[in-house]
Amino acid sequence: MDRLQDKAFGLLSEQFGGSLVESVVEQVAQLPVEVPSWGFGRGGTRFGTFRTGKEAKTVTGRIKAAGQFRALTGKGQTVAIHIPWDGEKKTEIGALAKLLKKAGVKAGSINCNLFTPRKRGPLDARLRFGSLTNPVDAVRKASVQHNLDCIDIMRRLGSDTLVLWLPDGTNSPGQLSLYDQADLLETSLRAICRKLRKGEKILVEYKYFEPGMYATAIQDYGRSRSLCRMLGPKAKVLLDLGHHAPTTNVEHVVALLVRGGDLGGFHFNDHAYADDDLATGSLNPGQLFRIMCNLVEGERRGFGDVRTLALMIDQSHNIKDPLTELVESLTNIETAYAKALLVDGAALRKAQLACDASRGDAILRDAFLTDVRPLLAKARAMAV
Amino acid sequence: MDRLQDKAFGLLSEQFGGSLVESVVEQVAQLPVEVPSWGFGRGGTRFGTFRTGKEAKTVTGRIKAAGQFRALTGKGQTVAIHIPWDGEKKTEIGALAKLLKKAGVKAGSINCNLFTPRKRGPLDARLRFGSLTNPVDAVRKASVQHNLDCIDIMRRLGSDTLVLWLPDGTNSPGQLSLYDQADLLETSLRAICRKLRKGEKILVEYKYFEPGMYATAIQDYGRSRSLCRMLGPKAKVLLDLGHHAPTTNVEHVVALLVRGGDLGGFHFNDHAYADDDLATGSLNPGQLFRIMCNLVEGERRGFGDVRTLALMIDQSHNIKDPLTELVESLTNIETAYAKALLVDGAALRKAQLACDASRGDAILRDAFLTDVRPLLAKARAMAV
Amino acid sequence: MDRLQDKAFGLLSEQFGGSLVESVVEQVAQLPVEVPSWGFGRGGTRFGTFRTGKEAKTVTGRIKAAGQFRALTGKGQTVAIHIPWDGEKKTEIGALAKLLKKAGVKAGSINCNLFTPRKRGPLDARLRFGSLTNPVDAVRKASVQHNLDCIDIMRRLGSDTLVLWLPDGTNSPGQLSLYDQADLLETSLRAICRKLRKGEKILVEYKYFEPGMYATAIQDYGRSRSLCRMLGPKAKVLLDLGHHAPTTNVEHVVALLVRGGDLGGFHFNDHAYADDDLATGSLNPGQLFRIMCNLVEGERRGFGDVRTLALMIDQSHNIKDPLTELVESLTNIETAYAKALLVDGAALRKAQLACDASRGDAILRDAFLTDVRPLLAKARAMAV
Amino acid sequence: MDRLQDKAFGLLSEQFGGSLVESVVEQVAQLPVEVPSWGFGRGGTRFGTFRTGKEAKTVTGRIKAAGQFRALTGKGQTVAIHIPWDGEKKTEIGALAKLLKKAGVKAGSINCNLFTPRKRGPLDARLRFGSLTNPVDAVRKASVQHNLDCIDIMRRLGSDTLVLWLPDGTNSPGQLSLYDQADLLETSLRAICRKLRKGEKILVEYKYFEPGMYATAIQDYGRSRSLCRMLGPKAKVLLDLGHHAPTTNVEHVVALLVRGGDLGGFHFNDHAYADDDLATGSLNPGQLFRIMCNLVEGERRGFGDVRTLALMIDQSHNIKDPLTELVESLTNIETAYAKALLVDGAALRKAQLACDASRGDAILRDAFLTDVRPLLAKARAMAV
Repeated sequence: MDRLQDKAFGLLSEQFGGSLVESVVEQVAQLPVEVPSWGFGRGGTRFGTFRTGKEAKTVTGRIKAAGQFRALTGKGQTVAIHIPWDGEKKTEIGALAKLLKKAGVKAGSINCNLFTPRKRGPLDARLRFGSLTNPVDAVRKASVQHNLDCIDIMRRLGSDTLVLWLPDGTNSPGQLSLYDQADLLETSLRAICRKLRKGEKILVEYKYFEPGMYATAIQDYGRSRSLCRMLGPKAKVLLDLGHHAPTTNVEHVVALLVRGGDLGGFHFNDHAYADDDLATGSLNPGQLFRIMCNLVEGERRGFGDVRTLALMIDQSHNIKDPLTELVESLTNIETAYAKALLVDGAALRKAQLACDASRGDAILRDAFLTDVRPLLAKARAMAV
Repeated sequence: MDRLQDKAFGLLSEQFGGSLVESVVEQVAQLPVEVPSWGFGRGGTRFGTFRTGKEAKTVTGRIKAAGQFRALTGKGQTVAIHIPWDGEKKTEIGALAKLLKKAGVKAGSINCNLFTPRKRGPLDARLRFGSLTNPVDAVRKASVQHNLDCIDIMRRLGSDTLVLWLPDGTNSPGQLSLYDQADLLETSLRAICRKLRKGEKILVEYKYFEPGMYATAIQDYGRSRSLCRMLGPKAKVLLDLGHHAPTTNVEHVVALLVRGGDLGGFHFNDHAYADDDLATGSLNPGQLFRIMCNLVEGERRGFGDVRTLALMIDQSHNIKDPLTELVESLTNIETAYAKALLVDGAALRKAQLACDASRGDAILRDAFLTDVRPLLAKARAMAV
Repeated sequence: MDRLQDKAFGLLSEQFGGSLVESVVEQVAQLPVEVPSWGFGRGGTRFGTFRTGKEAKTVTGRIKAAGQFRALTGKGQTVAIHIPWDGEKKTEIGALAKLLKKAGVKAGSINCNLFTPRKRGPLDARLRFGSLTNPVDAVRKASVQHNLDCIDIMRRLGSDTLVLWLPDGTNSPGQLSLYDQADLLETSLRAICRKLRKGEKILVEYKYFEPGMYATAIQDYGRSRSLCRMLGPKAKVLLDLGHHAPTTNVEHVVALLVRGGDLGGFHFNDHAYADDDLATGSLNPGQLFRIMCNLVEGERRGFGDVRTLALMIDQSHNIKDPLTELVESLTNIETAYAKALLVDGAALRKAQLACDASRGDAILRDAFLTDVRPLLAKARAMAV
Repeated sequence: MDRLQDKAFGLLSEQFGGSLVESVVEQVAQLPVEVPSWGFGRGGTRFGTFRTGKEAKTVTGRIKAAGQFRALTGKGQTVAIHIPWDGEKKTEIGALAKLLKKAGVKAGSINCNLFTPRKRGPLDARLRFGSLTNPVDAVRKASVQHNLDCIDIMRRLGSDTLVLWLPDGTNSPGQLSLYDQADLLETSLRAICRKLRKGEKILVEYKYFEPGMYATAIQDYGRSRSLCRMLGPKAKVLLDLGHHAPTTNVEHVVALLVRGGDLGGFHFNDHAYADDDLATGSLNPGQLFRIMCNLVEGERRGFGDVRTLALMIDQSHNIKDPLTELVESLTNIETAYAKALLVDGAALRKAQLACDASRGDAILRDAFLTDVRPLLAKARAMAV
């Protein structure tokens, strides 16, 4: 197969020109992709989780697996950390730092947990009424404090990125006023952001439902963006591919966020129904390609380097082996990115401005139909 | 308020005629509604469950709460039983029977569990590859056997109804052939049904996704109905209001199933997004009303008595007190049913056959806008 | 029936207190509702329109019908005008002004037409590539000019509101860059707004798809809001109930827009699937009630008077008689508004801040289940 | 490029083996694909149609264009005929037959029109209350008669396939009883089918909404299939890719219909939101591939030859040149089919039965990522 792939690589060079092909290989090799610590464990649904005994169960196992991923793929340069699953106390964070170093990876984003009730303290079962939007002062303040603690941990681990996925949402219209929900949210967010220093950032994730089933506090990109703009340049929007209402044009959201300077990063995964957290690009490779095209075009138009975005995989591995499925997703991301880089942007724009939609689509299709696996093989060899 | 309600009742009698109003009260009083044992516990999402310590945690607590529901509302005549949560061994089932008797309720449908991995035996983590459709013989056979055991338990508890909610579904196209999935499913179902005796029935539930995120084995009413027709008259379709693709016209499905003699019963709940399991009628009271209208019309057209359907509430009480929310749902069901009974069916049909849609809608609206709470109060007094 | 309604009114006064009931009647009577000129004609789908000969076909017929609506209901104080369907040339606009006066109504919002190809000039079949976002200069400029002309017409008719529903959207990713689409859109909008004087406003409507089937230029409230904020205080968001992705929580959008001072008005209608343009509140009365609750709460919290919003009905009467269906919709709006006014806001908020969701929902339900038709009858008598 | 494609073809032969590659080329070459006469005209939305003057406007132009398509691609062996757009009277049908012959194509499916009101006769504006389900006898009977006439035309044109897309559906619950709708539908369908002779068939299309916005008479595959089974073996289900509720797993529907012997054919197109009628495979090539995989697997399992299905393109060309877009769709169909034929079915099934989902998905991915354009080029050369 290697010989065939060499031949195929040669054909691609003939077809697209050697310098373009080399440049694509290099850019794919240099694309940073973050993997989540929790992604190396077994995921599940509300109906249960099927642990086989083979997946990582402890922080040690998870970071070790992240090291394997790094060695295998050259990617996973940073690992997203979950607090408190990966540790919370000073000693735990110290141990975590050593584990990361040993595994040859760095701490990536720091992810707070505002959804698991704690045995002690105010974050008990009342957390079902919200964290940052909880009408009970004690619960709300403890939720803010948890984020402030996460910022400390972030600094200790040498990271600059706090990720806020806010589970808050109501299950019925009588549970909480949407006006109070918004007020409480903004006050809490301001208190968290005040602690951030220059060079540090918070990524504010949105999600249209679940665990709240009626009105989610940060339900869409519009809400997340307006919060970020209120909070200032340290706050950026985090886009999870599975967090939109059905039939939402996600690549359109990507383009608008890139263009406005509002995008902070991605949670990559795929889905057919809701936030299914399947392997990225496994069901809808066309959409992933179009997202990458919009990122590449944004960069070409001067809206910032794709590599400065937090490109994070966030999946739930309910069925397959987690490490294998993370590699599958990485490959799908690289595939989509390589194809997007092959698009002849100048010819595309020329066709578009001439109202030649058939030609424009043909240009995109030419890139999408190209088998870029020979390029990816070179890029991986370069990255490892 | 009681005096006001008496006056309001008098007004309704003047408006609709005393005999119609009395008949509605009686029919509401006689409507049997089943509550789920598990519904008295705290529900949750995949992100966690918020136990307050006040909700029922043991089978004893759950059946006791069911007794309270019965005493309070006059409904909950039967209680849906979950195996093994409410017991599985002979002694456990014996104790359960006593609990039910003491609580003044009867065993309703018997619900098997094909989604929780067991510590011993073949139903281990391999259950993630399916139960009745698992390609591994041992797992599939044990799944069938669990249902056969449930039939035994059903008989011991004096019930005649087995409910099959099949969690089987794949997460990716490469996991299992859709042809093999269908073959395995049909073979397993036949093996289960073979054990059923005259007067016993199996209700086959469908669900469009979750926990499987790609291809659910029984994904819609069309699949459930074709399976039931293959299995014979003992098998009927179970319709859960939250198990349809977005924007599905559920009352249309109800009418078609009633008309074909295929409907076995309901799992009542409400939702905004997916299978959210909120209080029935809490977000979409219009839909619940239209469903009831179709049931009432079906009965009037000779397609069988509404009271012979298994009218079951199936919700997940993540936020509110379970008992309180079950009463809320029951009241919403009774409200919708009473309003449907107030519809002037003859006038409606006359308008419809005369292509007078405005008049037809006005007739339905007249019933829907009527405040039937005075009727419900009488019906409850009668039922308790 | 009148005697019964009097009795029922008395009962409501006893139940809620006479002064609250009187206040609700008054507020319903004073609620301004705008009807669309085009709504008095027969609507259709892409498969055809079924004209019966009875619906209004000319501008004269439409404005006459609007007068009938006004006389019948006391509402329809203003009529939304469509350019060029209701006229475009100076003489036509002069005649229109007379028709309006004669019918006892005023010109409401002025609605431009950017979707119908003209026989002459640049707005020909090339309009399929966009109007304000068309890459062809001549087409784009003519589209801007059409809006500038509409502003002139607006002034001549004594209106202060321009409504922009932008049909622009692409059918494939190769048709137009999403970056160019956004650039062109913003430039065009700025050119239109520059002409607006103090006291005049533009309402910017969004719609998630149709007629564009891939990427709509103003696809959601987030995009519309960011455009309006860019354009300044004269621009506000116009929310059409049927223009959201499936399962969107529309009342949440309403609350966020009200709270931010971004909402300019509504296009009321109802739907089950997409932009179905059915009679408002006909399928989902619960949602309409919750929207009204959020408007009323917003007003109580000081976010502006509901009556200053443009409350417009925008439906497509494919089946029923247009005038009859508009009255149906108006009644549904008044019903929802009256119920929202009956909500005990103080008690609701107290329950919410005490985390008593069951109580909060019960308070909303009490209002929703109340039969407010006796109040509406008084309000209509007062308004006519 | 030709030289490169030859090299690429050689590489594919090395990789997959020459005999497999040859067989794929042959099967692609032999796949019959039907094009719709109306697809050569300009399509539109309810907001308008943008005729450029270049698209076909008359039956002569449309059939001529179909001949061009045939000459260009070797496909479009049959052309779907619309009655009365392509003719209705005897002389018109005679002329049509000559046009078809001259263009080198044959008449494919005969498509009735139950949605356009006629100037004379009972199919006037009352058609808005339904055709085959219209409560007015005269309208319903005329609708049946139109189908009987279409059967005559079908025979005169040498076709054996009648396609029934039923536009019937209500816009509100009060418009028509869902029970009456079902009764009338079944009676009408029986009357139509009675006329069919051996060797003739009727394809019954379903659609979840539009033009009816509340309850469509044949709303999903479950309804269509039950009607077909009632009607007997001459009736089969017609699946249009855009006619499902959002997030429906369409390939699952395909597999179940194939397996049950219920599938009659396809209307190929693509969509992002509703029945958008975009170029097949243009937005969701992954889904089209999975559909083809299920067809190929069905054939391998003995459920009938793919080539006996009616493989019809049905799109609305609102923006692009119709002929060009039809070629684009054909190419996408051939691409997906070729990739599906490259799947190593034996290895896939082995992985699936061994619960190796990662391996199974990798096998599918290998085929999907392969660039099959060199194969398609050979197949087209063979077919032309």
